[in-house]
Amino acid sequence: MKKILLWVGTGLLAAACCRTEPVPGRWKNEAPGVWTTVVGRPEGYDLLSSTDTKPRREALNGKSAQDFPLDMSRIEMAVRDGKTFLTFPLTPDEQIYGLGLQFKSVGRRGQIMRLHMDHYGSQDNGRTHALVPFFVSSEGYGVLINSARYVDLWVGTGVRTDSPNPPVAQDRNTDPAWNPQPYSDNLEVLVPAEGVELVLFSGEDMLDVVSRFNLWCGGGFIPPKWGLGFWQRTPTRYTDSMVRAEVEAFVENGFPLDVVGLEPGWHSAAYPCTFEWDSTRFPDPAGFADEMQRRGVKLNLWCNPYIAPRAKLYDSLAPYAGTHTVWCGIVPDYTLREPREVFKRHIDREQLALGVGGYKVDEVDGFDCWLWPDVAEFPSGVTGEQMRSTYGNLVMAAVDEAYRARNLRTYGLVRAANAGAVRYPYVIYSDNYSHREFVTGVVNSGFNGVLWTPEVRASGSGEEWVRRMQTTCFSPLAQLNAWADGTKPWSFPEVYEACREVALLRMQFLPYLYSTFAQYYREGVPPFRAMNLVAGFDGRVKREKGTLDGTENPYEMATIREITDQYMMGNDLLVAPLFAGETERKVVFPQGDWYDFYTGERVGNGNEVVVRGTLGRIPLFVRDGAVIPMIPAVRTTAEWVAGQPLELRVYGKAAGSFDLYDDDGTTYDFEQGKYTIRRFTASPEGRYSVEELASGGGWSYGPEQWRKMGE
Amino acid sequence: MKKILLWVGTGLLAAACCRTEPVPGRWKNEAPGVWTTVVGRPEGYDLLSSTDTKPRREALNGKSAQDFPLDMSRIEMAVRDGKTFLTFPLTPDEQIYGLGLQFKSVGRRGQIMRLHMDHYGSQDNGRTHALVPFFVSSEGYGVLINSARYVDLWVGTGVRTDSPNPPVAQDRNTDPAWNPQPYSDNLEVLVPAEGVELVLFSGEDMLDVVSRFNLWCGGGFIPPKWGLGFWQRTPTRYTDSMVRAEVEAFVENGFPLDVVGLEPGWHSAAYPCTFEWDSTRFPDPAGFADEMQRRGVKLNLWCNPYIAPRAKLYDSLAPYAGTHTVWCGIVPDYTLREPREVFKRHIDREQLALGVGGYKVDEVDGFDCWLWPDVAEFPSGVTGEQMRSTYGNLVMAAVDEAYRARNLRTYGLVRAANAGAVRYPYVIYSDNYSHREFVTGVVNSGFNGVLWTPEVRASGSGEEWVRRMQTTCFSPLAQLNAWADGTKPWSFPEVYEACREVALLRMQFLPYLYSTFAQYYREGVPPFRAMNLVAGFDGRVKREKGTLDGTENPYEMATIREITDQYMMGNDLLVAPLFAGETERKVVFPQGDWYDFYTGERVGNGNEVVVRGTLGRIPLFVRDGAVIPMIPAVRTTAEWVAGQPLELRVYGKAAGSFDLYDDDGTTYDFEQGKYTIRRFTASPEGRYSVEELASGGGWSYGPEQWRKMGE
Repeated sequence: MKKILLWVGTGLLAAACCRTEPVPGRWKNEAPGVWTTVVGRPEGYDLLSSTDTKPRREALNGKSAQDFPLDMSRIEMAVRDGKTFLTFPLTPDEQIYGLGLQFKSVGRRGQIMRLHMDHYGSQDNGRTHALVPFFVSSEGYGVLINSARYVDLWVGTGVRTDSPNPPVAQDRNTDPAWNPQPYSDNLEVLVPAEGVELVLFSGEDMLDVVSRFNLWCGGGFIPPKWGLGFWQRTPTRYTDSMVRAEVEAFVENGFPLDVVGLEPGWHSAAYPCTFEWDSTRFPDPAGFADEMQRRGVKLNLWCNPYIAPRAKLYDSLAPYAGTHTVWCGIVPDYTLREPREVFKRHIDREQLALGVGGYKVDEVDGFDCWLWPDVAEFPSGVTGEQMRSTYGNLVMAAVDEAYRARNLRTYGLVRAANAGAVRYPYVIYSDNYSHREFVTGVVNSGFNGVLWTPEVRASGSGEEWVRRMQTTCFSPLAQLNAWADGTKPWSFPEVYEACREVALLRMQFLPYLYSTFAQYYREGVPPFRAMNLVAGFDGRVKREKGTLDGTENPYEMATIREITDQYMMGNDLLVAPLFAGETERKVVFPQGDWYDFYTGERVGNGNEVVVRGTLGRIPLFVRDGAVIPMIPAVRTTAEWVAGQPLELRVYGKAAGSFDLYDDDGTTYDFEQGKYTIRRFTASPEGRYSVEELASGGGWSYGPEQWRKMGE
Repeated sequence: MKKILLWVGTGLLAAACCRTEPVPGRWKNEAPGVWTTVVGRPEGYDLLSSTDTKPRREALNGKSAQDFPLDMSRIEMAVRDGKTFLTFPLTPDEQIYGLGLQFKSVGRRGQIMRLHMDHYGSQDNGRTHALVPFFVSSEGYGVLINSARYVDLWVGTGVRTDSPNPPVAQDRNTDPAWNPQPYSDNLEVLVPAEGVELVLFSGEDMLDVVSRFNLWCGGGFIPPKWGLGFWQRTPTRYTDSMVRAEVEAFVENGFPLDVVGLEPGWHSAAYPCTFEWDSTRFPDPAGFADEMQRRGVKLNLWCNPYIAPRAKLYDSLAPYAGTHTVWCGIVPDYTLREPREVFKRHIDREQLALGVGGYKVDEVDGFDCWLWPDVAEFPSGVTGEQMRSTYGNLVMAAVDEAYRARNLRTYGLVRAANAGAVRYPYVIYSDNYSHREFVTGVVNSGFNGVLWTPEVRASGSGEEWVRRMQTTCFSPLAQLNAWADGTKPWSFPEVYEACREVALLRMQFLPYLYSTFAQYYREGVPPFRAMNLVAGFDGRVKREKGTLDGTENPYEMATIREITDQYMMGNDLLVAPLFAGETERKVVFPQGDWYDFYTGERVGNGNEVVVRGTLGRIPLFVRDGAVIPMIPAVRTTAEWVAGQPLELRVYGKAAGSFDLYDDDGTTYDFEQGKYTIRRFTASPEGRYSVEELASGGGWSYGPEQWRKMGE
């Protein structure tokens, strides 16, 4: 601590400059592996209180007891200059994940972020659709910074003079080991508020930490069964008869379809919106909705929540609007009960009553250039910045309340989410259309308590089309978003069979997928997640020293290599999408034997393997001992609900089991125990058994058949 | 004001949400066309006080009287949520310029900026090397927001419900006129501090407004004559003998050379630096410096201001360093007198005493990833954010004080500047290497009280090389920066003659250029500036409605067209660089006749003209009535100082004159009136006359010869 000693010698300067004494922080143990503390004077409005989030304490109490994971004194907290400053220690090999839905990288160490809700700007700098001030450390803990402000983070970049193990200065002239980014042993945070609540999580491993974070934030959720089928979004300005024809075409082509999404055009006016049916394109909304119901098709309605002056809602919401408009539509302050109730009553009467399944909530993220500026004011006193950070959550909350009042589940899309959204049945999407970034989005979603869909909508070739279709079919929401292009699954006839094959394969996975969501709700385990959350996976980031280029790389910045293009769907399935132009790709396997899903052949174990793919098959791998429940290739979830025989595929040599969950698929009765869980176990000797763990009702499966793969 | 009325109906909400009453602000008239006011409680540390900036009141008093340009009540100011909020009205055709050295666009209306000191990140979003919270409006006024914080601005993007003329909502479904960015009539500002000083400027036109801003900030300056010659930066780790050989090569090739820049390698250690000569590469610094002096070559020394632990300076500066290091070098707090004096004494003894001409101050801008984070603390109590915004200014100030103590002018390079830097003889540069963005940088520099050099260093072809060389020769600092590439002016032999021709042409312009800088100092007029600052130039931004593309342009954003690739050098010369691959280009001329510099032929008048260029010539145009003073093609400024005959080129038919300024070229004696100004006037009838306006001494010109061009 050379510097401190020097300060002693400089009298007053010491006082002026010495580090604010670390506030030990009175950490309160809230639940197993969950602690909270308060720094300074937290604001009344934060990420969790904004939508009245209640921790899932019962589920948390089922988790193992944990010790506080860090030396408390090494977490420094201070309030000065009207802001809150936090410093967390980092160990040499420690990696940090989370901090929002980023699309290019997975590990955050070495990054500087300002968590600002916005359209993703193609840089992992914190500006994105789901900014979540939560990080999880490879050291086995995680922290939620419960602030609705734009939080700045320096993740292992700042080098402190008072560091216990500071890096040594080098001479760039002569030392080939000179490093443009010297080792940093801290994660520093600036919260632009005079106080904040911190929630610290500990667990068995990173996945357990993330699961406890999800439960603390009130999630996860189980979508309605129909939500897991295939979604087709029709082009803007489609009429009822055009939608009818679209549905027909899916039947004729034998392509799965459960949900039709209506884009701008169902409203009598859009950008801003009225939330009223357009009488020219949909003269008989109720009749149309009934017909869709009868055909087993759910409707999802696009909207942005900015209310048009011509809307019936306008006059009753205007008194509760902010000082700025979006596309000339007012922005209701849904932190207030009155406008929220007005909005809920309206959509319940005009759309929910007709059987509409949910909404696609657009443009709650940004862009900056049309959302309200941070200078905006709202009637509740919530600032423009806080409203920006939480508006997506507020709209999801309002819609969710409306559906819960009918004891119906919804499943929708949203452009912006923040901590606390994990309990809402929504999937994030955006205009970004890089296939590789889509996949990295799925990878990162699991660290952040959100879901992400790599929707497919356009393509330069049939090959690209089928590769994109394969990725969306192994995501939380399998959707073709044809709003602008009018593309159909069969628009590239040369690959249609491959598209149909993967869409039907998703349907066969419905039991597996639904049980995976049940685990999300019951245990907080993210259904789609990074390999880094799998025990035995080497997620270390490899840095290769950069080479000097006066124009391209003047600072010899290191090249960073990490795994951003494969992920887990549930506990047992490793998804490694192929991209246009590829006939093979590298897959990195965690420790333990891994098997080809289709053939049951052993492929790898803790190593990197080049796997070949065919046009028709997305590379899928299964862990040793896995039991994968599958049903026949149904075209709609209605056929699934009607009851299907069950095939239990058994992989590898280890003992394993699968807990198959089922319920009525549409209501919240499961929260009162109305569900069934059966555990299907396979022994190494090939003995198979079934055990009923819960029998509250709801079971869509006929006789089961076991199938040992690879034999 | 419909909304206000509604609020009245909603009781408390009104109080909670009504716009804070506009604070009229007690504007104080400080000088002709200059007013200041204070909002809230401004911070003790601001952009002008940080380096003790004194307005050039004498020069300002020479300006015309002006009325306050705006309806005061329409400027809204409020302090809430610990921040300062400002709203300025915008008229429909109003354009806004300035707000930092941006490289892609000129007009700021429609942009959202966060003025954050950093390496330019290839987006005009406020992150750049020279962030200057000053804007100038086409309505004839300008405003400086005198804050060292990161200022957020929404320049004509936010639409307010209380707007006097709000845009009308449209239906994107059916209205082809739907606009993704509805008309906004305001410029809103968020200063993250509980108060701020504002300085408002008015003038005859935008150029006069900018000039008064420059004078208020204590500028401009007159560089030493040697600074306007050609600069060659040698590669890193060059030794004294290698530099000697380099200088020889320039003589042999007959290429102009006045300054040699030494890159990392002259220090005994760099990144971080020692500010001590390296004894292996420069065993006899004094002898070496003397020899360079004798050869008429000035030395410029690269540095970054982060002090290496091994430096002699370290122990005396460490007590005044911030909490974070940069490349393991400490960051001295130069807002304090003690460390500033320690640093000045050191460089004066070690370098200035040897005749070193100045420094290249690198890496005071960013990147974020190695500069101190905003959480950093400094002994003076200045915050990390404030220090980040002003560190370039602080280092320039310290070096400038050291040179002024010797009554010697310096001319240097810096990577970061802010308001208040206009009085320091420095030019900004960066790693950016887009030739077109280089030119747009020159265009924008004039709005911001800074200078920018489009340095040349590498090239893909001889043609590109000569085009880049032409641009740098018509910039404030003509430099080849070979630090990484070792390129020489003759590295592309096939275009060497063209390179030499333009370098010598710059030397012929020295009298014009030097007088242009005199005008910068005496009247505040930026020597390099945008066409938009020329009376009679149509700088309107053209917006073309965008076309829908689901992936590329989902919001049908408009395409923006404006002039970003031509600029003025001084009052009379229009520079329109050609870029690799071009044999011709469009040039937009202001009202009035414009003539080809080389031939004197009339080319255009208030219109767009396609001009052809040759490889050897950069397109240059001269305004009607201009008198351009030129000297023969000298190789060094020493030859110029020794005395040269003067050629006065006369263009067009209008009456015109040129005020030729001269002084000793090296000291600050001109501030005590030791300079000469002669006005050379040409009448339409072809009568030529000379009038001595000042005769304080210093005149380098022999007999003058008039030359009517185009005849």
